Amino acid sequence: MGLGKDYAQQQCSIARALEVVGERWTLLVVRDAFYGIRRYKDFLVHLGIPRAVLASRLQSLEQAGVLEKQRYQQSPPRDEYVLTEAGIALWPTLLSLGKWASGHLEGVDTPRSFLHVACGSELGAYGQCPACGDVVPAGDVLLTPRAGLDPDPENPVSRALLTPHRLLTPLEIDHTSVRVQQ
Amino acid sequence: MGLGKDYAQQQCSIARALEVVGERWTLLVVRDAFYGIRRYKDFLVHLGIPRAVLASRLQSLEQAGVLEKQRYQQSPPRDEYVLTEAGIALWPTLLSLGKWASGHLEGVDTPRSFLHVACGSELGAYGQCPACGDVVPAGDVLLTPRAGLDPDPENPVSRALLTPHRLLTPLEIDHTSVRVQQ
Repeated sequence: MGLGKDYAQQQCSIARALEVVGERWTLLVVRDAFYGIRRYKDFLVHLGIPRAVLASRLQSLEQAGVLEKQRYQQSPPRDEYVLTEAGIALWPTLLSLGKWASGHLEGVDTPRSFLHVACGSELGAYGQCPACGDVVPAGDVLLTPRAGLDPDPENPVSRALLTPHRLLTPLEIDHTSVRVQQ
Repeated sequence: MGLGKDYAQQQCSIARALEVVGERWTLLVVRDAFYGIRRYKDFLVHLGIPRAVLASRLQSLEQAGVLEKQRYQQSPPRDEYVLTEAGIALWPTLLSLGKWASGHLEGVDTPRSFLHVACGSELGAYGQCPACGDVVPAGDVLLTPRAGLDPDPENPVSRALLTPHRLLTPLEIDHTSVRVQQ
């Protein structure tokens, strides 16, 4: 069914949000940006999606002001994709989706935890810290793999995510081992 | 592109959530259920989507335990779709999407407000009440149209939503005026 991506008849801010982030894979690209993934090839390797799909999603997110390009190499010119302030504001949406699946879907394990950096407490469904009572901004969240998380050993991005990692900080990836199928 | 709806390679609870609610229109069906829409024809009229799409979404949401059928008429048998506890737990996701579009996308007006029933304050992006400081459960949220919201006058569901309405309570719709194109 050719459903397009707009919801023209809906006078609704939720529908407007879904026009930007509601396409398949889009929120997982945004998730990866929170995890500190910034380069095209790293997204490609971690998501395992066709190049055309990734390119389309990155372009749409840039046009919507969710991601912005930052040049990290002049010659040849290479850009990274970094979350804007508007992109970072998607954190409650991503957190709530993950919390919802972990808490309410059958057979969903919880491969990673979101902890408050300051105290190590696991965030609640609304992004609040149960110890401090505060809503925790994304930059103060520690992404922590649970025991038993077993990614593809050939995937250097997944391997890098086996170490606890503060959201929004660049993920240290062994780029020499990032190989993309042509 | 035939992208399917699964994210088989992703060891991620966010991906699992999107397998259930990430298809086009699905979260707007869930939104309508929060707004108190329960009957197939009311969803159809309000969303303006093809019958096959709506039927598929309702079936998927029922299978995932987000909606459950409740019989409201014995002869002929007719069922309503009502959010389960798991479905109601999607409230932070919907709220955060709406808040995000209103606050961070250009040219998005905010046709409706989400207010805390107890004090009339508008909820924050994380679902908290700025006056009370509490996280407000969906059942204590008053959906309130902003001035100027101007739905299709031929649409009885949209008309019913012009009155402030407490989430999760059945919406009073003039069913005699609900006409569905065959």
